[in-house]
Amino acid sequence: MFIEKLKNAWSKNNSMMAVGLDPEQSKLPKNIQKYKDSIFQFNKEIIDATSDLVCAYKFQIAFYSAKTAEDQLLKTIQYIKQKHSWLPIILDAKRGDIGPVSEMYAQEAFDRYGVDALTVNPYLGTDSLKPFLDRKDKGVIVVCATSNPGGQEFQNMGNDSEQLYLAVAKKAAQDWNYNDNVLLVAGATHPEKVKLIRNITGEMVILAPGIGFQSGNLEEAVYAGKAKKSFGLILSSSRSVIYASSNSNFAEAARNVVANYREKSTNAAASLRAIGR
Amino acid sequence: MFIEKLKNAWSKNNSMMAVGLDPEQSKLPKNIQKYKDSIFQFNKEIIDATSDLVCAYKFQIAFYSAKTAEDQLLKTIQYIKQKHSWLPIILDAKRGDIGPVSEMYAQEAFDRYGVDALTVNPYLGTDSLKPFLDRKDKGVIVVCATSNPGGQEFQNMGNDSEQLYLAVAKKAAQDWNYNDNVLLVAGATHPEKVKLIRNITGEMVILAPGIGFQSGNLEEAVYAGKAKKSFGLILSSSRSVIYASSNSNFAEAARNVVANYREKSTNAAASLRAIGR
Repeated sequence: MFIEKLKNAWSKNNSMMAVGLDPEQSKLPKNIQKYKDSIFQFNKEIIDATSDLVCAYKFQIAFYSAKTAEDQLLKTIQYIKQKHSWLPIILDAKRGDIGPVSEMYAQEAFDRYGVDALTVNPYLGTDSLKPFLDRKDKGVIVVCATSNPGGQEFQNMGNDSEQLYLAVAKKAAQDWNYNDNVLLVAGATHPEKVKLIRNITGEMVILAPGIGFQSGNLEEAVYAGKAKKSFGLILSSSRSVIYASSNSNFAEAARNVVANYREKSTNAAASLRAIGR
Repeated sequence: MFIEKLKNAWSKNNSMMAVGLDPEQSKLPKNIQKYKDSIFQFNKEIIDATSDLVCAYKFQIAFYSAKTAEDQLLKTIQYIKQKHSWLPIILDAKRGDIGPVSEMYAQEAFDRYGVDALTVNPYLGTDSLKPFLDRKDKGVIVVCATSNPGGQEFQNMGNDSEQLYLAVAKKAAQDWNYNDNVLLVAGATHPEKVKLIRNITGEMVILAPGIGFQSGNLEEAVYAGKAKKSFGLILSSSRSVIYASSNSNFAEAARNVVANYREKSTNAAASLRAIGR
């Protein structure tokens, strides 16, 4: 079960932080560029430097598929499974299509790559998500309120009580969570939305990307999104962690950034707990 | 330019039909299963049997990525480019993410696979589509009103004058089409939506999937979606064409289905033209 795995990682590492391993070849440090499998080598060093500080690793598949680097994605995933098998792996691919196609996307994520959870796009509705939702051991992370500027354009449509992103959140909580494996994406750049989503979804876990480079505020995200019984949050950062240094000390620099994020966010959660929230 | 390529194919083959090459290994005829690159061999026979009847070929990427068959996808695309270079190639992948990720998806579709057009998902708004829209030689096919049952759930949200799918269509026509390279997806299963989209988008091309297996009506789709100055439509069918026969005569059977679809749809367009529409 993905949720059990996540809860275990939250508690074992006392962390809500996820690192997004989305490297671009041209941005890798020089000492890494020399390897034939440089993307894997880069990922491996970051993983080894942060595995005691995170609750998950997240892979944005486009960074691999754009460069015919599926093999290095798979190699990295297998490395995590061998060395840190208790850490959840999220594939960020925002998939979604008519049912028979979504079934293929489910096979890609869960059978080919063997990840624990996948992000999906809700635009095509329930039957487009069913092949994912039916995988009861896997996490299905539904894109709800995104961190980018254009996210407001359609996601805010509708009236105040039922804007599109809230309709998605409600549907996720009420209809899609029959296997208790649904999570939601809500950008840390919009804590006010994270809060409204938290209000209508109870203990459902929220993946909040946008920490760091996209200027999402860590503490605000925790105040807005912490669940009652658990952290309830995966706070994800990619560029601010993996490119913390462009030199050979990149892994140590990445560790320092994650350690700082972890401390800030767990402190914020502790201060909420202290006042019974 | 994708649109010029499409117009040329419409006129050269007098056809609005696109064939979706989305094969599943287990469903291939026995005489094809023996090949190591059986998916490519299957595609090749269908292409050779239909290249004078279609205006485009469409590939649903999930059928390839689920099976680690990216090489056979690329091989098929290259085959079309060599033998029928004037026929447009569409990658159906419904991509869409924050800007830097969409840039990677654009590279995947247009640089790695070298297709002429890509389907994209509008949920994340303008900045998520910009990396695609900026590729002025390529077609960007925005998912608008989908052919599946669940498509109604969110796409119909809002009020009558501005349901979500119509807001997407308007935005596409008014803001996104600055390179004259935007198309819209509207399922042939919903001709009433196709008509409303046609009304607000002028000559913009509509990709209407769902012909055949999903029971979209060909004539209704043409009556609803034909543009004034051109066909304005790509009518797409996959399963009803590629699985028309499960025997070694599959390519001939596919040809017969496409020929029939082509005749029906061009007759419908001709009858509209006869009354000045």
